[in-house]
Amino acid sequence: MEVKKLSLKELGRPSLESYKMAEKLNCIVIADNIRSGQNIGALFRNADAFGFSHIYLTGISPVPPNKEVLKTALGATESVAWQYFQDEELLIKWLKDNHVKLVVVEQTSASTSLGAFRPNLDEKYAIVLGNEVDGVSPVFIKNADLCVEIPQVGTKHSLNVSVCAGIVMWHFFKELTAI
Amino acid sequence: MEVKKLSLKELGRPSLESYKMAEKLNCIVIADNIRSGQNIGALFRNADAFGFSHIYLTGISPVPPNKEVLKTALGATESVAWQYFQDEELLIKWLKDNHVKLVVVEQTSASTSLGAFRPNLDEKYAIVLGNEVDGVSPVFIKNADLCVEIPQVGTKHSLNVSVCAGIVMWHFFKELTAI
Repeated sequence: MEVKKLSLKELGRPSLESYKMAEKLNCIVIADNIRSGQNIGALFRNADAFGFSHIYLTGISPVPPNKEVLKTALGATESVAWQYFQDEELLIKWLKDNHVKLVVVEQTSASTSLGAFRPNLDEKYAIVLGNEVDGVSPVFIKNADLCVEIPQVGTKHSLNVSVCAGIVMWHFFKELTAI
Repeated sequence: MEVKKLSLKELGRPSLESYKMAEKLNCIVIADNIRSGQNIGALFRNADAFGFSHIYLTGISPVPPNKEVLKTALGATESVAWQYFQDEELLIKWLKDNHVKLVVVEQTSASTSLGAFRPNLDEKYAIVLGNEVDGVSPVFIKNADLCVEIPQVGTKHSLNVSVCAGIVMWHFFKELTAI
């Protein structure tokens, strides 16, 4: 069988305008004090790929038009709605008031293994990814509805944060769209 | 409930020596002409986290002790066995002779959706990730036993290659270890 790589046209990606109008997952991703612009840019690409509705950024996370963010996001900063929150407590209050489940990605004493978690189509979710060194901030952990972790067998204690985000976002996308 | 972040000690990661002795997945990852040292470093972290047996690098892929690779791999270049192959045809012949299934990650006319693919514990797999711009080389596509792709709904045509690798490697790890 002749197998050929699909061209950009054959991939049939939506235009920026039609993507913005399209229905999204009821899923937000929160960048909690992520230091690297490259990691933030990759988060935008992940959110674009998997149809997340918004990216919320807090703390030291760089925001567009930061040069590293734009360079890595390759245009996804235009397709994905985003907002910066100075006050994390206010963001958490807004999420709670709007019945958004706070899902913290962190290795904690009460974490569920990612593969065992089944998101529900009737719920709204905000997935929190934390700082490259210190992980998710205590205020998010304290207010989490759920902590999930990616089980690992290696010598290191963590994956790169944008890789980790991609795996968790893929899991939500796969489970919620049955693709 | 008091939820607390686990310390490095509580995470109970294996030592370098015990990790090297431990049984691995029958899975190799191949970096086919990946340009960025940061992406190669992230591949090493992925391979360490998910217990892949080897990383094989070809073409322009930078190899340890490249500075960017070491900086991003955070020590995983010590825990994961790796080898550079000048000749991709020779590598493919070796894989075929050793009954390793070649799984190419690419959007092609014959790709299976990642979520629908069930790897088999009795098989050996080599997962091929390609160049950041051009994707997987034709010689790997021509010799692939299977092409898989990560379904996406966004305006961009691809995820970052280390994120893409992480998602595919997580899928194999999850399916093969039932974690």
